[in-house]
Amino acid sequence: MLHPMSHPDFPTPPHKRYFEDYVKGSVFEYGPIAVEEEEVIAFATRFDPQSIHTDRSAAARGPFKGLIASGWHTIGLLMRLLVDHYLSAVASFASPGVDEVRWIRPVRPGSQLRLRVSVLDTRLSRSKPDRGMVHSLVQGIDQEGEVVVSFKAMNLIGTRESSASQAG
Amino acid sequence: MLHPMSHPDFPTPPHKRYFEDYVKGSVFEYGPIAVEEEEVIAFATRFDPQSIHTDRSAAARGPFKGLIASGWHTIGLLMRLLVDHYLSAVASFASPGVDEVRWIRPVRPGSQLRLRVSVLDTRLSRSKPDRGMVHSLVQGIDQEGEVVVSFKAMNLIGTRESSASQAG
Repeated sequence: MLHPMSHPDFPTPPHKRYFEDYVKGSVFEYGPIAVEEEEVIAFATRFDPQSIHTDRSAAARGPFKGLIASGWHTIGLLMRLLVDHYLSAVASFASPGVDEVRWIRPVRPGSQLRLRVSVLDTRLSRSKPDRGMVHSLVQGIDQEGEVVVSFKAMNLIGTRESSASQAG
Repeated sequence: MLHPMSHPDFPTPPHKRYFEDYVKGSVFEYGPIAVEEEEVIAFATRFDPQSIHTDRSAAARGPFKGLIASGWHTIGLLMRLLVDHYLSAVASFASPGVDEVRWIRPVRPGSQLRLRVSVLDTRLSRSKPDRGMVHSLVQGIDQEGEVVVSFKAMNLIGTRESSASQAG
């Protein structure tokens, strides 16, 4: 069971952040980031050209009575907040993947999304002890406080100890 | 267990495609779509600004010895192929989510990605029998035939029968 300890932020900035700085149970919030109509349409025109995302008048007649952002666009906006504020800028390895992506509520142009990210678990790698896996619950929260999207992220992060030994 | 039956394509085009057209075990391939350096950098600059995706010279010194696409960009390119070729253009509901996203191999500018999509299961909704859930395995295949990314998609698709009864 997760016992949330909400922090204003990490003790270390992204360029001095390592595996050791991710503490199970910590919860962080960042943002907001704006969902802008022009970008909703441009993103979906390239990557998800369904009329609920690209065509304002067709979307107005559709199930959401207006444009909604592609779910992949919404995740992109949260990813931006993850990179700017949560991931290490110096010790992040490529992510192996994410699980349980859920688009819970429609996200409309004009929305403001905040990122809530909770450290679910951290495990030092047995085979490569210079790094560890951080499991995080990533949630997008709209301006009304509703969770609109969530997923579980896996991020491999290098340890401070290995970084120090390389520097020495 | 899945018994693949590879088809050249659906019997129906996207604008005449309904839940009944998705048959468990079917496997389709579409594409390719190009991974272009300019778009790799532009996408990541906005949504995933890590230097392995945005900075050619820093990436050249990094673990992949060159730029690689953001994993979210790679998925965006596959989503474009899904919308153009696989999903119904007339009976798709908003997707509830995807599972088991895995970034298996780096995707470099200049790559050509094909979409391979396998119908894993189909289930008519009990509570709303005008639609059903299609579970699909989505794989991105590069020009060397390697699977570079995969995820499991859930798509709610309306039935032809309900569409016909509405039209009548």
